[in-house]
Amino acid sequence: MKKNIIVGQSGGPTAVINGSLYGVVSEGLKQAETGCIYGMINGIEGFLHDHYMDIGALDATNELELVRTTPGAYLGSCRYKLPEDLNDPVYPELFKKFDEKEIGYFFYIGGNDSMDTVSKLSRYAAGIKSDIRFIGVPKTIDNDLVETDHTPGYGSAAKYVATVVREISADATVYDNKQSVTIVEVMGRHAGWLTAASMLARKFEGDNPVLIYLPEVAFDQNAFIEKVNKCLETTPNLVVCISEGINDGKGTFICEYASDVGVDNFGHKMLTGSGKYLENLVKEKIGVKVRSIELNVCQRCSCAHLARVDLDEAVNAGIYAVHAALEGETGKMITFVRNKSVPYELSYGTADVNIICNKEKPVPAEWIINEGSDISDDFIDYARPLTQGYVELPTKNGIPLFAYRR
Amino acid sequence: MKKNIIVGQSGGPTAVINGSLYGVVSEGLKQAETGCIYGMINGIEGFLHDHYMDIGALDATNELELVRTTPGAYLGSCRYKLPEDLNDPVYPELFKKFDEKEIGYFFYIGGNDSMDTVSKLSRYAAGIKSDIRFIGVPKTIDNDLVETDHTPGYGSAAKYVATVVREISADATVYDNKQSVTIVEVMGRHAGWLTAASMLARKFEGDNPVLIYLPEVAFDQNAFIEKVNKCLETTPNLVVCISEGINDGKGTFICEYASDVGVDNFGHKMLTGSGKYLENLVKEKIGVKVRSIELNVCQRCSCAHLARVDLDEAVNAGIYAVHAALEGETGKMITFVRNKSVPYELSYGTADVNIICNKEKPVPAEWIINEGSDISDDFIDYARPLTQGYVELPTKNGIPLFAYRR
Repeated sequence: MKKNIIVGQSGGPTAVINGSLYGVVSEGLKQAETGCIYGMINGIEGFLHDHYMDIGALDATNELELVRTTPGAYLGSCRYKLPEDLNDPVYPELFKKFDEKEIGYFFYIGGNDSMDTVSKLSRYAAGIKSDIRFIGVPKTIDNDLVETDHTPGYGSAAKYVATVVREISADATVYDNKQSVTIVEVMGRHAGWLTAASMLARKFEGDNPVLIYLPEVAFDQNAFIEKVNKCLETTPNLVVCISEGINDGKGTFICEYASDVGVDNFGHKMLTGSGKYLENLVKEKIGVKVRSIELNVCQRCSCAHLARVDLDEAVNAGIYAVHAALEGETGKMITFVRNKSVPYELSYGTADVNIICNKEKPVPAEWIINEGSDISDDFIDYARPLTQGYVELPTKNGIPLFAYRR
Repeated sequence: MKKNIIVGQSGGPTAVINGSLYGVVSEGLKQAETGCIYGMINGIEGFLHDHYMDIGALDATNELELVRTTPGAYLGSCRYKLPEDLNDPVYPELFKKFDEKEIGYFFYIGGNDSMDTVSKLSRYAAGIKSDIRFIGVPKTIDNDLVETDHTPGYGSAAKYVATVVREISADATVYDNKQSVTIVEVMGRHAGWLTAASMLARKFEGDNPVLIYLPEVAFDQNAFIEKVNKCLETTPNLVVCISEGINDGKGTFICEYASDVGVDNFGHKMLTGSGKYLENLVKEKIGVKVRSIELNVCQRCSCAHLARVDLDEAVNAGIYAVHAALEGETGKMITFVRNKSVPYELSYGTADVNIICNKEKPVPAEWIINEGSDISDDFIDYARPLTQGYVELPTKNGIPLFAYRR
């Protein structure tokens, strides 16, 4: 008997999360064993409120092809955590809905928290002897999932950060040689993978960004000021990249040091990022011209610097997930296994989702050098292959065209 | 006798200011009447300190071709205003330097202030009967120069803003339907051309950004809150674009209303942009989830969304400048004359730099509709042709390659 597929997206969007959605849907449509392909609107949370669509039907139009290159999460996302207690009534409620829709295959595209959802649903299914198969498809610009060489979404985000930091560095040196400091704050609360990618912006040895700080190493404010002073001697227009999550190593984020910044016009406490805090610190301690730039949400959802390698791998992860489910796997996440870096060769595998969920993979300590202010060349060998290749985007009236739910 | 060329860049960088530099240099190299081509490092200010280079020599390498697609200002820029008094000793000092280098043709690529430099030098030259010819090449993302249909740099910046606002809008709707407001602050202190371009982000009628505010119309905070409340009824995830220069119509920028936000950890007064101020206002008056995003320097110097039309016109402006100078013109700026919009046709002309400098061209009042909260479709006909076409960038290791001075 044919069984239906349901697929959802969860957590923060990326530039290629819809590539994986495209992979699941396009491959699902090809299979004899599968029927309809449903998409959960706003993940498992929306599905609980009966928000879903017949995403397989998009195939009849050009829309599915457009989904492939559209950044953001076409189906919408959620940040909903299923209860720890598998006796919670939400589980039978969900499985009743699965049964009503004759679901045989459940795919969830997301990061740590999404894998937690796959873990719980597959464990509950085992308990009630349901034969629905639950497969996680990895996705995160943070690149912090264990058991996989890297994650879809990281390559394009890394390319975005490297390119934009190169542009910011060009902008920073446009005026004269008077000293200036530009602090660029990159996403990443706990893992510095994305900030590390800023080193790919360098055009020559010693080029900006000269200093790079990740959350993996305790951040010492005095040492930072000393480094900046030293670097300004040789690089008068200095660019520094920091992770939003840099911290003192004792559990306090650097941005939390800005606790006394006062309130806005309306009495709300002003929140300050780590970049803004360090901007003020440099102004106070060194007195040179200084600005901080927080890369905005485009670092996670821009189509500007899609890496073909990343997009292709995201699509393949979706395709591989369909095959894994049809072959009987459940409670698994698709993983990337790097065979070699030069030339770059990847294979796909699966790993137990229970050992993946709620864990984080940091940048290796040995790759963080110069007292935590730089990244070693090992990182280049790791990251560069993931940022390769250009993707031609469909455009209309000169602007990239995106798919959207009507 | 052959005379040499000198060329400089001034004011803020753009994505195509180096296209104009490429135009001047490549065309200058072809002429029998011209000798060396010098580039002022950091504009007229740098030249006063004898900072210049033989930029014509780049032609022997691939570097000149690379300059064409490199964002930022290859020669470096300055924000230096020549004295109003033409009897100031800086003028004979400059002309002595010109004579020493046998300069016959002076090209200055920039905006209002740069045209002021061209104006003063050409008037001084007339006074001393110097035959050096002074030509301005327009450049500004602000698109606010008079006597020209538009300015090089605007088309690519407009395309950048439209694309990024479309991406931000995709990101803003990723979670569920709980109401949210995203405020995007776009560059433009006095003219709203660049902010207006955000309307090109709309995928369908009524799409985000639903509200757009320019500095040309007085901004009423109460009316704004009413509009936002009303729009949230039909667009639960609302995106609003504002110019950094929105003001109350009585000479006070909206950001200046945030005068009481207190001081940072070090006692410095906290500066808040108009976007951040409105974020706090929405939080206070409406209470929905709200964030503000300041588009960073990439809106002026990103290579991500180079418009071929814009780059080609920037190059042509440089080429046309060389011809104008050789034909004996001086004290002129190259202008763009639109023959028609559909199909788009442009010719090049010149205008007296004295009636251009220190003036600003606002967005026409009749294009600003809905009580100053939207832009009419007339703007689309005007702006869309300027954003067309894709430019393939040279890359190295997957990242766009930029030229830089060694």
